Amino acid sequence: MAKFLTNREENYSQWYNDLVIKADLAENSAVRGCMVIKPYGYAIWEKIQAELDRLFKATGHVNAYFPLFIPKSFFSKEAAHVEGFAKECAVVTHYRLKTDESGKGIVVDPTAKLEEELIIRPTSETIIWNSYKNWIQSYRDLPILINQWANVVRWEMRTRLFLRTTEFLWQEGHTAHATREEAIEETEKMINVYAGFAENSMALPVIKGYKSEHERFAGAIDTFAIEALMQDGKALQAGTSHFLGQNFAKAFDVQFTDKSGKLDYVWATSWGVSTRLMGAIIMGHADNNGLVLPPKLAPIQVVIIPIFKNSEQLALISETAVKIKADLEQKGISVKYDNRDNNTPGWKFADYELKGVPVRIAIGPRDLQNKTIEIARRDTLTKETVPVEKVSELIPKLLEDIQSNIYQKAFNFRKENTFYVDKWDEFVNKLDDPGGFIMAHWDGTAETEEKIKEETKATIRCIPFDSPDEEGNCIYSGKPSHRRVLFARSY
Amino acid sequence: MAKFLTNREENYSQWYNDLVIKADLAENSAVRGCMVIKPYGYAIWEKIQAELDRLFKATGHVNAYFPLFIPKSFFSKEAAHVEGFAKECAVVTHYRLKTDESGKGIVVDPTAKLEEELIIRPTSETIIWNSYKNWIQSYRDLPILINQWANVVRWEMRTRLFLRTTEFLWQEGHTAHATREEAIEETEKMINVYAGFAENSMALPVIKGYKSEHERFAGAIDTFAIEALMQDGKALQAGTSHFLGQNFAKAFDVQFTDKSGKLDYVWATSWGVSTRLMGAIIMGHADNNGLVLPPKLAPIQVVIIPIFKNSEQLALISETAVKIKADLEQKGISVKYDNRDNNTPGWKFADYELKGVPVRIAIGPRDLQNKTIEIARRDTLTKETVPVEKVSELIPKLLEDIQSNIYQKAFNFRKENTFYVDKWDEFVNKLDDPGGFIMAHWDGTAETEEKIKEETKATIRCIPFDSPDEEGNCIYSGKPSHRRVLFARSY
Repeated sequence: MAKFLTNREENYSQWYNDLVIKADLAENSAVRGCMVIKPYGYAIWEKIQAELDRLFKATGHVNAYFPLFIPKSFFSKEAAHVEGFAKECAVVTHYRLKTDESGKGIVVDPTAKLEEELIIRPTSETIIWNSYKNWIQSYRDLPILINQWANVVRWEMRTRLFLRTTEFLWQEGHTAHATREEAIEETEKMINVYAGFAENSMALPVIKGYKSEHERFAGAIDTFAIEALMQDGKALQAGTSHFLGQNFAKAFDVQFTDKSGKLDYVWATSWGVSTRLMGAIIMGHADNNGLVLPPKLAPIQVVIIPIFKNSEQLALISETAVKIKADLEQKGISVKYDNRDNNTPGWKFADYELKGVPVRIAIGPRDLQNKTIEIARRDTLTKETVPVEKVSELIPKLLEDIQSNIYQKAFNFRKENTFYVDKWDEFVNKLDDPGGFIMAHWDGTAETEEKIKEETKATIRCIPFDSPDEEGNCIYSGKPSHRRVLFARSY
Repeated sequence: MAKFLTNREENYSQWYNDLVIKADLAENSAVRGCMVIKPYGYAIWEKIQAELDRLFKATGHVNAYFPLFIPKSFFSKEAAHVEGFAKECAVVTHYRLKTDESGKGIVVDPTAKLEEELIIRPTSETIIWNSYKNWIQSYRDLPILINQWANVVRWEMRTRLFLRTTEFLWQEGHTAHATREEAIEETEKMINVYAGFAENSMALPVIKGYKSEHERFAGAIDTFAIEALMQDGKALQAGTSHFLGQNFAKAFDVQFTDKSGKLDYVWATSWGVSTRLMGAIIMGHADNNGLVLPPKLAPIQVVIIPIFKNSEQLALISETAVKIKADLEQKGISVKYDNRDNNTPGWKFADYELKGVPVRIAIGPRDLQNKTIEIARRDTLTKETVPVEKVSELIPKLLEDIQSNIYQKAFNFRKENTFYVDKWDEFVNKLDDPGGFIMAHWDGTAETEEKIKEETKATIRCIPFDSPDEEGNCIYSGKPSHRRVLFARSY
């Protein structure tokens, strides 16, 4: 299978597209910019959802569901918000089709025009805060800690599978608080939840930090983000958490009586991650043989492939295989025994490599004689022959090793591709080759940020939380700066 | 709390609406016909989803995700299908908003008109079969057994929370098969999965049967349904499974090479249940005190309420309560300990009754002395004082008892309200009082079916699979009939 992938070093972008298609993760649909998430891709998304949902609930959140449609007038209430999203909104204007009388087939019924247009949610702050208005009277009604799993639509001009699609799946948390401090604490808590998930489950190290004003969410006072480095040296924003201040409470007139009886506007946060994370997993770990899935998110963690010449051999091998499968499943490991006879073992090896299955077990007739099996790791592509009775002890440990190994590999890659740069020439050159994260001084102005973007296509990915105080001069303007910020080209 | 509910016997419809709102399940949103599913309601839906998803996977299905949007031209390809859905479609015509130059605020940008309108999916057969076309070449690519969890939109004129909403959440299975027989087997398998879920998890007995031609899904050869009886004597269709024949394969030109090398169109099924099931759970079991949730779908199965006069008492009670909670949780039971001090125990009792929590444990100072607790059942509203050391043994058994008791109660109700009727007068009278399921002969014609509907508002809910051969005369036309069918007024 691997031979059908474009070489990653030759054409990274084509390699990515090939991989998404060939590994059966997703494909473009007939609707411009909308993808079909295929079963194998969706199974990974289900793993992502399950773990995030567990983390949200463990931090006190509950799920709910709000309408897909947002009345245009709501959408317009928060000025910065509508400014940010107006250019990419799908708009519903009619609610009926009819058969055309002049024989043009099925047409929109002009008599079924909506009085007020409905926007397909690109994000749900407005429809949710319009509901919260009725839910909140007193400090006793706070906090509200709600998350929603939903589809959203943003009419993107250039789309790419998982990374940027017109419709995508995501979760969006929307919380309401009595104090500014509590809302900020929530914003921080959730960016930490995302960072923990990225590092522990996705095996991707991330930088946490503030967005510059220019890169903030439309309607936010502050946006925190996690940024991951992809193998081509570009950054990918993997999650954001927004402190919305009282902006939406003011736009929707959501006030509450505090403990002292005083009326005040409610404080808000929102935070989200999307199917974009699939892109991060792919580009963070995959190689020229295909996907490399972190064991914690792999729908199939172990595949067992029998090597046989006839049905008698298969029957004998199956006895061992079925036993191993049962043993491992009892330990909570997901195992597939692929005993199909319409493909060669070699074809299967390549196919499961392409699909990123962390561990492959092969069993042949000689293994049966020797009471051994062959174990192959997807991450290192190394093989080892081990006694069959050790399998159920070895595999759980091996899955942990793979999880931490691919994290470490990504961590080392980022370390090697993070550059502290103080000269403009070097900044420009590094961006072209090898790319990566560039820590540089910035004078703090939107003007400089914009100029740097124009000249290099690099943006300020974030102002890292842990960036230390350090006197220096802006990489572009030479003006004084007190800390370094993270620059990169990005997805 | 219960006093705020309209009496069920006085105004069933208002009682239902009150209950949905007061039990915090859902509310109407600012968007016509669209509801907000609130956290408590959504938690029940999550339980429904988890169990159904388990059942689908246990029967070999996988999940995937297809676009929200359907190009108008696809939608029109299957004639019966578009005929059935055209009148209730939300249509996207534009993809951008802009600030109006004459100061009217935010308006739809007329230059951003779509070349082809997009329909918000009311169901996904057309967009899915357009994808399947590229996935299926040979019998080796079959069967495809895919399910999708999604939101859909049908522009209903009269809406009611959960029962009929413009947007609703559902799952839709879409399978593709090499033979007619296999597709029919799948259609049957899934209606059985739904029936099993309704009876085992929702504690609602259902009648399985065929829909009459008039009531079939638009585009189906045959529709199987499960019908449940609500407490007001009306039927509720709780799930459908459709044998689609080769209709969609023909509309989208999906052919495959069979084992003998011959080209044939693919056979299809689709099947779905929706947030409507929430309505069935409510109306199947609730009473004038509120919801009565089946333990298997209750987000909170046991609530513990301390009865205390001061914080010392509360501290002592909490010791016992926390221990009970931990014991029960270890057995997989979900427990809430409500130690809030801003509401009286009486208020809490009423509130958890309203919310349908199956078991309530109360612990007061005297209980501590006597080493007892009080256990109350939501279904029978009976109380019992038991030794504290027996609690973790008693509760799991009690939850099972409640689950089977409410099933039995619903079963008995249905039995008492199912009538075998042979005379038109009786048919009409029974429908008015007491309502219920009426098993009567029908001459098999759409004309009679329509007349009966016009005169009585009753429809053929289904032709039960297990309705025995029996010679008789049509209740309306007097023409010969060979079996009884199920009539009822319905939601």
